[in-house]
Amino acid sequence: MTTTEAEGTGAATPTGAPETPGAVPAGTAEHAVHGYHDHKQEHLKRLRRIEGQIRGLQRMVEEDQYCIDILTQVSASTKALQSFALQLLEEHLRHCVADAAVRGGDEVEEKVAEATRAIARMLRT
Amino acid sequence: MTTTEAEGTGAATPTGAPETPGAVPAGTAEHAVHGYHDHKQEHLKRLRRIEGQIRGLQRMVEEDQYCIDILTQVSASTKALQSFALQLLEEHLRHCVADAAVRGGDEVEEKVAEATRAIARMLRT
Amino acid sequence: MTTTEAEGTGAATPTGAPETPGAVPAGTAEHAVHGYHDHKQEHLKRLRRIEGQIRGLQRMVEEDQYCIDILTQVSASTKALQSFALQLLEEHLRHCVADAAVRGGDEVEEKVAEATRAIARMLRT
Amino acid sequence: MTTTEAEGTGAATPTGAPETPGAVPAGTAEHAVHGYHDHKQEHLKRLRRIEGQIRGLQRMVEEDQYCIDILTQVSASTKALQSFALQLLEEHLRHCVADAAVRGGDEVEEKVAEATRAIARMLRT
Repeated sequence: MTTTEAEGTGAATPTGAPETPGAVPAGTAEHAVHGYHDHKQEHLKRLRRIEGQIRGLQRMVEEDQYCIDILTQVSASTKALQSFALQLLEEHLRHCVADAAVRGGDEVEEKVAEATRAIARMLRT
Repeated sequence: MTTTEAEGTGAATPTGAPETPGAVPAGTAEHAVHGYHDHKQEHLKRLRRIEGQIRGLQRMVEEDQYCIDILTQVSASTKALQSFALQLLEEHLRHCVADAAVRGGDEVEEKVAEATRAIARMLRT
Repeated sequence: MTTTEAEGTGAATPTGAPETPGAVPAGTAEHAVHGYHDHKQEHLKRLRRIEGQIRGLQRMVEEDQYCIDILTQVSASTKALQSFALQLLEEHLRHCVADAAVRGGDEVEEKVAEATRAIARMLRT
Repeated sequence: MTTTEAEGTGAATPTGAPETPGAVPAGTAEHAVHGYHDHKQEHLKRLRRIEGQIRGLQRMVEEDQYCIDILTQVSASTKALQSFALQLLEEHLRHCVADAAVRGGDEVEEKVAEATRAIARMLRT
């Protein structure tokens, strides 16, 4: 698995190797391995915990638990989702956006605009 | 004033028992059947759909899908959770809070303060 | 000024005086004096403080202060606005919605639906 | 690689001085002119409009307008503030964060962490 290689590039070659598109090996296209890849197991663990929270909510509804207690649990789940999203976003900025900046050209503009739209969606929910 | 009767019924008397205050069996105290009870099946369906979205997120992470696409899906899930919370809250205000108002006394103050704290938690996530 | 009278009624007469629509004096129509009236001076003070924060933001932009510091100040201002909204909402639930419940009829349904839409707008910003 | 030049210009060299690292005068350290500088007048206009909204809220409270109408206006103001914050953040990512990536080293890590914390604060309000 060459994950670390792909990941490692990051902003790591600002001075050295000439970074031309042609130099990127076929298999490691920009999106092939993302910033969050490093923490894949951690992410899956988080998501499984959130899945458990959602099942817990179903149990609470089935058992006719008190509305406010259910709302508290919903807030905990949305908080956990937001926290997951923030970590993903941080890794995305650190890798995808920073890499685009290092590569230069228009790409960074697009990446930043795309990330900003994602943040706007997070804010609106 | 027949408000209490009208409010109190909720889904509480599916069998048709006459609902007079004195008739409430010991085990079905105020919180036994909540405002959201009417829409229990609808709520469970919503929550199962959200659970499916969370599993979809796990698949996306496992398949190394693009961060921004995952973030979009996270936003859809938090939106669905918020929407579920809003419906629950509406039913809570309609039943529990309104019932407390009709019963009079200090209880409505407590119910409103409790609901406001729940809304504050929703806003902060 | 009969504000306190109007305010005071709230859910305060659940047992005593018969509450018929005809008994409401002409000048104290439902919307004439709202729940938040009691805290009018407090609300105005809060809003003036928020206005000061917004002017502070203008100063920060004029002085080319660091983006992140400006964002921190924006978050403080939105937090202050949300907190103001929550207090207003609490008073609205305590007075307008609870009063509608006590009066009975369809009005409470409308009031609750209206309040829920307001909460949904708060969540989406 | 001419990325640094392209990025670095921003509104930083209005006079056209060649921008080599060594040429940066003492007083114009990294933070002296930020990404949002380009849109300074636009930002000030936005903020003045928000200030007007906050004054409008004070008028509404003074005139005892309906709580829900005030809440609607509060939501419009928080939305305007969030929208301002998003634009600021986008410019920050485009300039400060991207520049740090191009310069290389640990700075981009810090910048990304700092931006993520700012986004977290925006989400929590």
